[in-house]
Amino acid sequence: MKLTASKLPGLGHVAYRTRSPQALERRVAALKGSGFDIGWMDGDPAHGPAFLIQDPDGHKIELYYETQWYQAPPELKPALKNQSQRFSARGINVRRLDHWNGLAVDIQANREFFEKCLGFRLTEQIVLDDGSEAAMWMTCTNKSYDFAYTRDHTGTRGRFHHLTYAVNSREEVLLAADICLENGVYIETGPHKHANSANVFLYVYEPGGNRVEICNAGARLILAPDWKPIRWTEAERRKGQAWGLKTIESFHTYGTPPVESSYKTLRAWTSSIV
Amino acid sequence: MKLTASKLPGLGHVAYRTRSPQALERRVAALKGSGFDIGWMDGDPAHGPAFLIQDPDGHKIELYYETQWYQAPPELKPALKNQSQRFSARGINVRRLDHWNGLAVDIQANREFFEKCLGFRLTEQIVLDDGSEAAMWMTCTNKSYDFAYTRDHTGTRGRFHHLTYAVNSREEVLLAADICLENGVYIETGPHKHANSANVFLYVYEPGGNRVEICNAGARLILAPDWKPIRWTEAERRKGQAWGLKTIESFHTYGTPPVESSYKTLRAWTSSIV
Amino acid sequence: MKLTASKLPGLGHVAYRTRSPQALERRVAALKGSGFDIGWMDGDPAHGPAFLIQDPDGHKIELYYETQWYQAPPELKPALKNQSQRFSARGINVRRLDHWNGLAVDIQANREFFEKCLGFRLTEQIVLDDGSEAAMWMTCTNKSYDFAYTRDHTGTRGRFHHLTYAVNSREEVLLAADICLENGVYIETGPHKHANSANVFLYVYEPGGNRVEICNAGARLILAPDWKPIRWTEAERRKGQAWGLKTIESFHTYGTPPVESSYKTLRAWTSSIV
Amino acid sequence: MKLTASKLPGLGHVAYRTRSPQALERRVAALKGSGFDIGWMDGDPAHGPAFLIQDPDGHKIELYYETQWYQAPPELKPALKNQSQRFSARGINVRRLDHWNGLAVDIQANREFFEKCLGFRLTEQIVLDDGSEAAMWMTCTNKSYDFAYTRDHTGTRGRFHHLTYAVNSREEVLLAADICLENGVYIETGPHKHANSANVFLYVYEPGGNRVEICNAGARLILAPDWKPIRWTEAERRKGQAWGLKTIESFHTYGTPPVESSYKTLRAWTSSIV
Repeated sequence: MKLTASKLPGLGHVAYRTRSPQALERRVAALKGSGFDIGWMDGDPAHGPAFLIQDPDGHKIELYYETQWYQAPPELKPALKNQSQRFSARGINVRRLDHWNGLAVDIQANREFFEKCLGFRLTEQIVLDDGSEAAMWMTCTNKSYDFAYTRDHTGTRGRFHHLTYAVNSREEVLLAADICLENGVYIETGPHKHANSANVFLYVYEPGGNRVEICNAGARLILAPDWKPIRWTEAERRKGQAWGLKTIESFHTYGTPPVESSYKTLRAWTSSIV
Repeated sequence: MKLTASKLPGLGHVAYRTRSPQALERRVAALKGSGFDIGWMDGDPAHGPAFLIQDPDGHKIELYYETQWYQAPPELKPALKNQSQRFSARGINVRRLDHWNGLAVDIQANREFFEKCLGFRLTEQIVLDDGSEAAMWMTCTNKSYDFAYTRDHTGTRGRFHHLTYAVNSREEVLLAADICLENGVYIETGPHKHANSANVFLYVYEPGGNRVEICNAGARLILAPDWKPIRWTEAERRKGQAWGLKTIESFHTYGTPPVESSYKTLRAWTSSIV
Repeated sequence: MKLTASKLPGLGHVAYRTRSPQALERRVAALKGSGFDIGWMDGDPAHGPAFLIQDPDGHKIELYYETQWYQAPPELKPALKNQSQRFSARGINVRRLDHWNGLAVDIQANREFFEKCLGFRLTEQIVLDDGSEAAMWMTCTNKSYDFAYTRDHTGTRGRFHHLTYAVNSREEVLLAADICLENGVYIETGPHKHANSANVFLYVYEPGGNRVEICNAGARLILAPDWKPIRWTEAERRKGQAWGLKTIESFHTYGTPPVESSYKTLRAWTSSIV
Repeated sequence: MKLTASKLPGLGHVAYRTRSPQALERRVAALKGSGFDIGWMDGDPAHGPAFLIQDPDGHKIELYYETQWYQAPPELKPALKNQSQRFSARGINVRRLDHWNGLAVDIQANREFFEKCLGFRLTEQIVLDDGSEAAMWMTCTNKSYDFAYTRDHTGTRGRFHHLTYAVNSREEVLLAADICLENGVYIETGPHKHANSANVFLYVYEPGGNRVEICNAGARLILAPDWKPIRWTEAERRKGQAWGLKTIESFHTYGTPPVESSYKTLRAWTSSIV
């Protein structure tokens, strides 16, 4: 996670690490001249050269391999050497950066890009009655998804929906909600259980205006090499989330940077914190 | 819990056990001729003679002392002798009947009745801006409440809102929601955290139409003999439940037996299960 | 909790609040001249005059009624007004002081004292094959115990075994163990489930050498006015704790202040933290 | 899981699915004539032809690709279509077959076999002060291990240590212990937290005598392609498991089929269930 000063909230870029230096070379060769390629970047703190591309909707994506392993400073050395850092006893004890979610105007175009150009697999998707795709979840690991895109109801390109941190259990998602409540962090919706992916979620806004999700990691992994994507219909989505909570409207319209139609959400939120 | 065949769902009566035979005699003496008394009943399976009264809103209440302790049959003997019965590995593993909730037209009248005639203590309440009382939580134990009444927005007397079973943890409330989801039990709202009492709730309808709550027991007990009731204002309640979920409308109108204005809720529910 | 500088760890005194000023007067009248009475103390920060007594084993006990309610400073005001203070997002988030445990040479004498002189009720006990009592759990609330005494295998009088803080769930006891592990707090035994009381425990030593327990509060309360004490036999205790963990030897010998036979435990502990 | 009638408990064989038909062909080509190969099997219910091999210690392993996806019968159809089957509300609600553990005489030989012949990666290991390997954890997914081998202190080849089912949370491991306790299932050790892998475990014996573990899945995955194996030393292992529980002796000696030196464990266990 790298924070960069900016007038408006949003996602600068997301970076994916390839499996090997060779895999990086192969991706670069495949993408050069595709129209999605931007070019090599010098790298960022803790990682080496990165090849910058953009997806059809305009989100910036870096691919890199060289990385510098984190070494915990003495005061953060863990009791168990197979942890990268001390188990924190402060705040929401997040365990990993789990996934991120973008908004996109044309979900299908983005899906095909990630399948064809980057080798991701589709695990779940929403297909409306008119055949258009409204959301997609993709992975290149055994996690049920590494990122997702949902349709931007405002028709704006390249926006950011949320970033997700995983905790170990559903109870810790509830504790996260308690902590947000006590600390004046705006809770948009949740905790509740997602129908897709079956994890328990909590959506909050960080002080800069970006949406952040806390979810739990469970036993569900996609281990089958021939997994068939789950296709959710409009009728199924109308049932709400797993336990029945309806998806709130701001979920389809509020993204960052905000657009005019999401100022209402932004105002509701800022008025709640002053 | 005693189930009785009836054309319509609802609560026949609730029964409270007194601390001693003498306490029962004192209550009977105090209530006889008060207008709230109905008279002695022969008792029900597992308990002795009961004195039947009704609260100002018309809910039937029995007071009794003699009780027959439950003896688990051999196949339900627990591994630990300080449990009354085996820890169930089937369904929602409820641990105790926690409280019940009635709807009432005049909350203040009911509160005064339970304080003056039965010695219950008020622990929390909602008082509207016009000074009228909209809800009350009362106890005669160290639990934060043994029962509650909330205002019936349909203006009907004597109705039942819900019965609550407690489980040991918030995680088990979530598991209860999973189980209800899988078994087609209608989830009205939740899981979410109550602002009052701070427990996590799940409201469902049993097949007969009564609302049942599953909540968790936590470390919160009212141990102080001089506890000052918590008074919630309209503004505070408008914030929704603890993590922000708004109280749904059916919560103020759907009770049992149902009245005309709650047929809509009932239809939504029955259509969800067929 | 009041900490007092001392050369050796141990419990100075424990204080119980009576239900009313009248209850305090009645206890004082009953105890004066009994041989267990020591006399009135001026009170301590946050409470009024206290009557000091000692139990047959020599533990000091204060009885008081007047108390000053805690007012959270602005930075610790909770989001929910029915909490006394903010839900902490730091360290082990303990919710209440649950109970304390003393060591005693003659358990039966102590039990009779608390029953006859202070009105506590016995809820569970261990009775050895020779008929002698080895442990007792007593309450004057709906908690399954407010304090306990276990036999001091070193034959020393007046010692302290542990103080217990309750958290809301078993998961939080596990989190407490994770936090202790990361912070070099000596874990004596646990987490595991108690056979008596059925809660999950964790025993650690605070830096001064006193044993502290973290346990969870569950749905189990003693609500029946005619509860029959559970009597555990030697054979039952030999099965270990609920899930089979054997009670470790230091549990019977290490108390505070430490005696010669517990120096071994103390040395093991101090060597683990340097 | 396929159960086969046998006079003695133990593991017949374990089967791994390859990533593709081509991957299977490549493994077969590499293994034929290696001395570890046994030959093609016709397949088992729900999977196609399998190539049988054995590891240096003598454990039987099948490799296959063709598989038949499970279709839940109508009464077990899940509420959420991305689950393979209904969320069970009965017994220990296991979510996936997580890993298995073998005993082996020469751990190093087995590690090299799995690295060189099958492409597994080592994630954690125990190396004794004399340089010999005492345990290893290996994966070919993002799970921190798919199987493990620990040294057989009885010097017997080809034995089985345990099979592990994962549940979603640590709380559910505790519930599993409650369920085993109530149903007379022998609990060998736990629940407690592993130092390696950092999950919470419970070891029990199934009625046939095989050891079964219930553990939780957490947020920990091995996502880095250049993960460096964690090497545990003798001194580190002497600290016991994560929260301090010592590894019990039967863990090093009891495997299936049992050998003479483990009859003691077997007798203790059988006497506990009759």
